[in-house]
Amino acid sequence: MSRLDSFIRRLEAQRACLNQAALAIADLPGPVLELGLGNGRTYDHLRELLPAREIFVFERQLAAHPASMPDAEHLILGDIRETLPAAGARIGAPAVLVHSDVGTGDAERNAELAAWLAQVLPPLLAPGAWVISDQPMRSPALAPLAPPEGIAEQRYFLYRHRTD
Amino acid sequence: MSRLDSFIRRLEAQRACLNQAALAIADLPGPVLELGLGNGRTYDHLRELLPAREIFVFERQLAAHPASMPDAEHLILGDIRETLPAAGARIGAPAVLVHSDVGTGDAERNAELAAWLAQVLPPLLAPGAWVISDQPMRSPALAPLAPPEGIAEQRYFLYRHRTD
Repeated sequence: MSRLDSFIRRLEAQRACLNQAALAIADLPGPVLELGLGNGRTYDHLRELLPAREIFVFERQLAAHPASMPDAEHLILGDIRETLPAAGARIGAPAVLVHSDVGTGDAERNAELAAWLAQVLPPLLAPGAWVISDQPMRSPALAPLAPPEGIAEQRYFLYRHRTD
Repeated sequence: MSRLDSFIRRLEAQRACLNQAALAIADLPGPVLELGLGNGRTYDHLRELLPAREIFVFERQLAAHPASMPDAEHLILGDIRETLPAAGARIGAPAVLVHSDVGTGDAERNAELAAWLAQVLPPLLAPGAWVISDQPMRSPALAPLAPPEGIAEQRYFLYRHRTD
């Protein structure tokens, strides 16, 4: 499989997970968190899927396409390790969907950040909230979900916030 | 359609065009030209499709993934307007496939560069060579081809070097 094939599969997996999560949380109130804006393509997709939701975006360094730029009220700039733990007040309500796409080419750093997120995210989540992630997250508060139909295991990761 | 949807369609169109062109030129001798390396994903795909071909890559400024870096002999760095017209000797034989992905966010510049390429490319091509392009090219030497099945018109552009 070429890197082009692999990239297309990753984007298709990302989209399928976002679509499934948007359906799943349709009847639950709460804002959405996008961790890592990048080019802004998944943010744009989330806006289209969930036009009535508040989407708060966390990004260290802005590099998004102008067509996919959040307004100032919904953009939280800075190192996520500093901004996320204190974000509860800004967000105003428990989040119902989190999309975390913060991986880089550094596998060790990715694993460390995912472990940290798995601790910090659950207190920010509503019961039944979904977490979609480019990295696996291990937490007793996050129940792993099967990937959408046609998407390979381990390509993207889905979790549901446990309420029991 | 979100920007994520649109991006996936563009990559799928790119891949379908490359796959079709690689089949079409399978029995014709000659090297391949990749105009614009970028991340290197389509270069990686071309290498996989055509493992026995020489692939010459033209790029202004290297930003490719290390896994998709051509060797020094096949990498021609610099402004394509300076490097391409003089590339015949370096390439050594008429090219049988060209993939041009040099567009940027600047539509005027893209149109101008595509018009220039449509003049400069044909003398470098073997009879029956294919040109795959992110921009439309107009030249009496380039016959437009229909897109592969399932790919919308105008998403990516295919041409065959006229021999009549």
